[in-house]
Amino acid sequence: MEKFEIINGGICAAKGFKASGLYCGIKHGLPDSNESAINKKNDIAMIFADVVCNAAGVYTSNKVKGAPVLVTQNNLAKSGGKARAVIVNSGNANTCNADGEEKALEMCRLTGSQLGIPMEQVIVASTGVIGQTLPIEPVKYAVPLLAEKLSYEGNTEAATAIMTTDTVRKEYAVKFTADGKECHLGGMAKGSGMIHPNMATTLNFITTDCAVSPEMLQKALSEIVKITYNCLSVDGDQSTNDTCMLIASGLAGNTEITSENADFETFKNALYQVMKNLTIMLAKDGEGATKLITCTCGTSPDLDTSITVAKSVIRSPLFKCAMFGEDANWGRILCAIGYAEADFDINKVDVDIASRAGRTAVCRNGAGVDFSEEKAAEILKEDEIEILIELNSGTATATAWGCDLTYDYVKINGDYRS
Amino acid sequence: MEKFEIINGGICAAKGFKASGLYCGIKHGLPDSNESAINKKNDIAMIFADVVCNAAGVYTSNKVKGAPVLVTQNNLAKSGGKARAVIVNSGNANTCNADGEEKALEMCRLTGSQLGIPMEQVIVASTGVIGQTLPIEPVKYAVPLLAEKLSYEGNTEAATAIMTTDTVRKEYAVKFTADGKECHLGGMAKGSGMIHPNMATTLNFITTDCAVSPEMLQKALSEIVKITYNCLSVDGDQSTNDTCMLIASGLAGNTEITSENADFETFKNALYQVMKNLTIMLAKDGEGATKLITCTCGTSPDLDTSITVAKSVIRSPLFKCAMFGEDANWGRILCAIGYAEADFDINKVDVDIASRAGRTAVCRNGAGVDFSEEKAAEILKEDEIEILIELNSGTATATAWGCDLTYDYVKINGDYRS
Repeated sequence: MEKFEIINGGICAAKGFKASGLYCGIKHGLPDSNESAINKKNDIAMIFADVVCNAAGVYTSNKVKGAPVLVTQNNLAKSGGKARAVIVNSGNANTCNADGEEKALEMCRLTGSQLGIPMEQVIVASTGVIGQTLPIEPVKYAVPLLAEKLSYEGNTEAATAIMTTDTVRKEYAVKFTADGKECHLGGMAKGSGMIHPNMATTLNFITTDCAVSPEMLQKALSEIVKITYNCLSVDGDQSTNDTCMLIASGLAGNTEITSENADFETFKNALYQVMKNLTIMLAKDGEGATKLITCTCGTSPDLDTSITVAKSVIRSPLFKCAMFGEDANWGRILCAIGYAEADFDINKVDVDIASRAGRTAVCRNGAGVDFSEEKAAEILKEDEIEILIELNSGTATATAWGCDLTYDYVKINGDYRS
Repeated sequence: MEKFEIINGGICAAKGFKASGLYCGIKHGLPDSNESAINKKNDIAMIFADVVCNAAGVYTSNKVKGAPVLVTQNNLAKSGGKARAVIVNSGNANTCNADGEEKALEMCRLTGSQLGIPMEQVIVASTGVIGQTLPIEPVKYAVPLLAEKLSYEGNTEAATAIMTTDTVRKEYAVKFTADGKECHLGGMAKGSGMIHPNMATTLNFITTDCAVSPEMLQKALSEIVKITYNCLSVDGDQSTNDTCMLIASGLAGNTEITSENADFETFKNALYQVMKNLTIMLAKDGEGATKLITCTCGTSPDLDTSITVAKSVIRSPLFKCAMFGEDANWGRILCAIGYAEADFDINKVDVDIASRAGRTAVCRNGAGVDFSEEKAAEILKEDEIEILIELNSGTATATAWGCDLTYDYVKINGDYRS
């Protein structure tokens, strides 16, 4: 784990990836010819690789799947897991529309034709309001401009373009060594509400120059999604458009990873670093959030139990409100542990609360212990809170990330479409 | 269904049930001898039956079970399903306390001894903050006074005593005929937050004078709980103290119901009327709620699918916020239908929204349809909203009840313990 260096560059950190982003008016209409689009938030992005890449994806398990999810899955099936470009917009999810698939295909066709690649090598994604017809004119307007603007430093423009109610851009990248070669892996993510991933979360794009076979790429992605994005919940609402793509150019020059060797472990750890940090950024920027909540469930019978228990706490609206109110109402933590669908002895459970201001025990063997309310108040005043659960029933550990439930979450979501 | 008459009297509507309630200071300390307790909200109640009754219960499935839940289950096992009294307090859940069981047993002992009945015939329940030691002095103070105050008109005093963050008292009763005899069935309920029952909800006590065998009583209760209380969600948090008790005195004089005959159907329908109406009262009084939301899922492959889909919508925080904002953001309804764990074709789904101001289609065959935003706004301005889902995949129907998610929910729960 110590062999990683955090670097800049997001999705352009790895060799061979250009990106761009701009405002095209998906939600608010085409930019006026007389006005500069400079003050409008980017709403469309493109990624283009110098070479054909191996690509792995994990998608929403919601029955309502956005048209772009279906089209991307289909494209990768046709291309044999190869991809060279990504086209992605915010402001409209292109989901639950009668013409959704047609529009998503048109986005691939426009992009492929502009870049001179088969449309099956284009990954398409959309995020925003569900159930409103996607206007195609802004995309037609944008694609040639995006192609023109493509740059090896375009990561920030692209990361800005996928934001919806996000208040900060989410990018993270690391450098590592595989087969004696310097490799890079970086990603961007968006998401703030409708976040309770179950297979993947919202939109995430990760690029690497490390050479990895399609099978091993998928294996690494599925394994790491489970303990990072899938351990995130902002509101318990699982999006229809969750897509997490991992794209490998192979330009680092290492021997392709085709088995579970030492390089594969190194690669997986790099992927874990990036995905974990993007997950934390997503949790911290949850809609209306004032606090990042990290819940770790240790000494558990197995990984699934740890995840189930930690996510149950992170998801509980009552617990989330108590965190907003900085109230050490630990009974709500026990309540959420108790309704988690997992098998363990509740009478052995210990709970501590912690932050940079300190740590205190609140529960031992399933029952309350005396603690200083003053100390607890100091701990909960911080903006990053840890809930530490020990089941005392095994050796597994997992962490889940979330945020508090605030007036602003209600405000943002009581008035989203307008 | 048409053979019922709504009557007054709550838990005292049926023959042979007395009740009482008073303030004893569970949360705020014993009443001062110099002050009248008249302005303080009741926090303890007693029910006492003239004869030994058959009793059936459904309890929380949370692993963390309140001590009173365990003691009641144990008492009824010992007494062979017979009960004669109920002692119940609010202000403290007596849960996650090392001495919880001892205190719950003491409540039964005090009550049994005061009323001259075996302590195994006492049902005990508590509701309020989890994880704070229950003070027994207020109970000792209250029990003789409660016994003295017992009255055939004490239902309202008792229903008031079980309220926590509830803003209104919940009572409902009906009159019906079984075996040519006039029977009565009435109940009281409490609950406003931590409501997402799964086996039963929060505290509910229902009494009847209809003679029903213990087996048939349990059968009727389990069946009706499934389609009433278990279809209610205020916040997705399943309480540790959920208890629903049905107590039958047999004093109506009908031949005891011991099989699934016509009288059993009549009895079940009466129970359904009372439990459904208490469920609606609970949903309407959800913490911070401004709107009652009723979601019906019809033309479904089976009852379980209908329930799962309707509850998924009712539980979605994003949908609940949209209802608070009176925003016809139906994509969030489709999203919640899509992540419901059930098997059906999402492309056949139709959705309408309705209220006393009218009704409009928003989705047909899983895709949006044009609708008037003005009309939708008028519909959503009302305080009782209906979401009507047709899966077009079968003949089953179920309804779930909930409420909107508001600033006040956050306010109430950011500051509950104090």
